[in-house]
Amino acid sequence: MDKTYQPVRFSEKLSRITELWQPRVVAELNDYQFKVVRIEGDFIWHDHPETDEAFIVLSGQLRIDMRDGAVTIGPGEMFVVPKGVEHKPYAEKEVQLLLVEPRGVLNTGHVGGDRTAQNDVWI
Amino acid sequence: MDKTYQPVRFSEKLSRITELWQPRVVAELNDYQFKVVRIEGDFIWHDHPETDEAFIVLSGQLRIDMRDGAVTIGPGEMFVVPKGVEHKPYAEKEVQLLLVEPRGVLNTGHVGGDRTAQNDVWI
Repeated sequence: MDKTYQPVRFSEKLSRITELWQPRVVAELNDYQFKVVRIEGDFIWHDHPETDEAFIVLSGQLRIDMRDGAVTIGPGEMFVVPKGVEHKPYAEKEVQLLLVEPRGVLNTGHVGGDRTAQNDVWI
Repeated sequence: MDKTYQPVRFSEKLSRITELWQPRVVAELNDYQFKVVRIEGDFIWHDHPETDEAFIVLSGQLRIDMRDGAVTIGPGEMFVVPKGVEHKPYAEKEVQLLLVEPRGVLNTGHVGGDRTAQNDVWI
């Protein structure tokens, strides 16, 4: 037992992200990815027709609007948006998030547009 | 937008778990599950030949021994044990964990024995 493996420290990864709304991959689990992202303000309505999406809040208060309601997620809390459900994240102040979703999922789902972040970028 | 959805609060789920080493499902993401578990002391050597396993520490200091080394994981940190890699979790004091793995994975992998917890129990 000689080797010292290093865990992923979310705060260290987040401290090196300079742009909002740009998810960065920090770990993979089979064909799933864990991504950290800093967000603030309003995103666009979108959905992921092929997959659920997990939001775990690391800091701040995240609101996710859905067409029939909303959820507010704080630190130490998570929520899974089911596949095909339209949603729009909103952060009045900066929120630091951990996302879990299959490799290849775009942040804007199938909606696309200029809010689409480059995918599969590791930090 | 009338409905108020509830997030999963890890501390609330953990507060209702009375037994150590008994993972409880708190959310599903496609065919993957998020499980919270309280552990303390030594577990057994085991592996999961068919899947990676993600450990996210919520409180305490977790050490995972592997045959060639070890990793220590604290709050706000995570580590993925690759499939097929033998590992043995160890917590000197109580650790509260979030696990992410495919539905159906047993805590003792293919080793079995009396440390095997009942699987797929929600809280």
